[in-house]
Amino acid sequence: MKRFSFCRMAQDGRARLGVISTPRGEIRTPAFMPVGTAATVKAMRPEEVRSTGADILLGNTYHLMLRPGAERVARLGGLHRFMGWDRPILTDSGGFQVMSLAGLRRLTEEGVTFKSHIDGSRQMLSPERSMEIQRLLGSDIVMAFDECTPFPEDEATAEASMRLSMRWAQRSRDAFGDRPGYALFGIQQGSVFPEQRAESAEALRGIGFDGYAVGGLAVGEGQEAMFGVLDYAPGQLPEDKPRYLMGVGKPDDILGAVERGIDMFDCVLPTRSGRTGQAFTHRGAVNLKNARHADDPRPLDEGCTCPACRCYSRAYLHHLVRSGEILGLMLLTHHNLQYYQDLMTGIRRSIGEGRLGAFAEATRAGWAGGDIDRL
Amino acid sequence: MKRFSFCRMAQDGRARLGVISTPRGEIRTPAFMPVGTAATVKAMRPEEVRSTGADILLGNTYHLMLRPGAERVARLGGLHRFMGWDRPILTDSGGFQVMSLAGLRRLTEEGVTFKSHIDGSRQMLSPERSMEIQRLLGSDIVMAFDECTPFPEDEATAEASMRLSMRWAQRSRDAFGDRPGYALFGIQQGSVFPEQRAESAEALRGIGFDGYAVGGLAVGEGQEAMFGVLDYAPGQLPEDKPRYLMGVGKPDDILGAVERGIDMFDCVLPTRSGRTGQAFTHRGAVNLKNARHADDPRPLDEGCTCPACRCYSRAYLHHLVRSGEILGLMLLTHHNLQYYQDLMTGIRRSIGEGRLGAFAEATRAGWAGGDIDRL
Repeated sequence: MKRFSFCRMAQDGRARLGVISTPRGEIRTPAFMPVGTAATVKAMRPEEVRSTGADILLGNTYHLMLRPGAERVARLGGLHRFMGWDRPILTDSGGFQVMSLAGLRRLTEEGVTFKSHIDGSRQMLSPERSMEIQRLLGSDIVMAFDECTPFPEDEATAEASMRLSMRWAQRSRDAFGDRPGYALFGIQQGSVFPEQRAESAEALRGIGFDGYAVGGLAVGEGQEAMFGVLDYAPGQLPEDKPRYLMGVGKPDDILGAVERGIDMFDCVLPTRSGRTGQAFTHRGAVNLKNARHADDPRPLDEGCTCPACRCYSRAYLHHLVRSGEILGLMLLTHHNLQYYQDLMTGIRRSIGEGRLGAFAEATRAGWAGGDIDRL
Repeated sequence: MKRFSFCRMAQDGRARLGVISTPRGEIRTPAFMPVGTAATVKAMRPEEVRSTGADILLGNTYHLMLRPGAERVARLGGLHRFMGWDRPILTDSGGFQVMSLAGLRRLTEEGVTFKSHIDGSRQMLSPERSMEIQRLLGSDIVMAFDECTPFPEDEATAEASMRLSMRWAQRSRDAFGDRPGYALFGIQQGSVFPEQRAESAEALRGIGFDGYAVGGLAVGEGQEAMFGVLDYAPGQLPEDKPRYLMGVGKPDDILGAVERGIDMFDCVLPTRSGRTGQAFTHRGAVNLKNARHADDPRPLDEGCTCPACRCYSRAYLHHLVRSGEILGLMLLTHHNLQYYQDLMTGIRRSIGEGRLGAFAEATRAGWAGGDIDRL
């Protein structure tokens, strides 16, 4: 049986090129993981997601435990089989979403009780139950159960929250046990306080994980504050393990985080934006609803190989979005995921060739240049 | 330049096996045309529609004239290029939908003025404008502009409506002109009155069309009354031209209409049902929302080759539908279109082999048998 491993192949500044190996396939890093919240990447078939270059998907423990239920997924052969994706899946712990989505939450040392946002039923999550659910789902990369510290938070409250998460990290490790081929990632907390981040990193290293997430970011602190933490936090984590920045982000956030030593990302932005007519391109973000596209025969993004850009005009995409046609959000979702994966491919290639700086500069210049001229 | 032609290859009772040839490709008949109302078969990419076996799509003149506009589509290279479908397209005349969807209609000898249901703008349709719009769209099979007589209607009113449609049929023919490679179909009216149907057929034959639709059915009269008309109406139309039953229908309607000499069909049922969790199968209609599917690992329809049946369980489809996931309606739409095309394939094969009766009996027995047993 192949085990979980991480191999670093090149470094450019703090940016790392690597490969995570799992029994279900390799994950080229830096990696972007499309979000498949409820056992589907919205509006995409798994083979289409794969065709964009995605090596791994993210699933949400909170959503899946409520519907269709982890035990049911397990009876049906696990999440991979259920949703028709045979490559690696990472699941979050449910900790973040139980705090942002569920009703009537009560947080204790034991865990969190809450009301389902779907049917109002009483539910519970704890480190042990989160590990159980992620095992039932068959997740390849399991996240430790933590409390995502809100932002802003005063130093004492942030510290208490971080220390609770570290106790939960130990319980997650204990409950996870020994599962060859599967990985458990710890999550660093500590808000924007360097000493707390250091203490959290130290605690996680002491417990020992297969990878480490920088948690508690992308929660409203803004890019400057986030990059401020990323200037030192990744360096506090083990060098020989993958580093994952949860819930990030815009293309420019990803580029800046890679430059600061992050290896893995997930975000709903490309899929969610696609459903509202927003597209990411080499020339910046484009709103397909805008009337200027109505007669434009050109593709959305020159050079992009996705079906939306290969087969259709901006005029057609505009028509679909304006008409509320499902094909519009299918195509824009596909394009955005392709754009994100193409960005990661460019990032990986340039790290390998030691020219990430030039790549980042050219990429940012493209975004800053604005969308293609009007007809 | 290849011209439009219809070749009958076999007959079984009144059912006909044939091929319509057009410059854009062949249409195997009896044919089912998926509906692509607003320049998209909802929730499907064109190549997926083609993969189900569809030879031709239907587009709606009424919708397309309002949004994105026929002149705009023409500037962008025509409907085929606009929507990425290079095979034949049939467009209706707008006559039916202007009466069912538009506001503030006024019908005169000249045509119909109405208010757009999208933006309230004043609009006009006449035989001449309908021909112009369908030419601008680049439709391969153009429908004459008619008034779809409502049901039920008294004999005198139905007769007046039919005669108006026949005058409009002549104006449609005159306005269409001579366009090699493109076809114009006339539409028979006359409600449920055999003499009116005969008069209408006679008028259309006198004008001369490339194909003939049986109009004014599938408007609430029920299957028995519809089959009552189809027992004689197709026989009133030329034998050597395709016969098209507009807006039909359920699988059983199609089977019965083929047995009565119809060659072409269109209907929103497979696509619309797919978007509400309803699936057509060899064992009858199935509602995927039903809780009995929640733990069912079996495919939706045994033997079906569509992605929904090949890659997923009923439990997964149930989960998607219950969760309101877009992938659910994508997969069910795909399945339903596959089911309809498979039905047409079975029909064509059995006509060719002179055993349509046995095929119809076995198919109806399958539907009547009910869905597969509970687990």
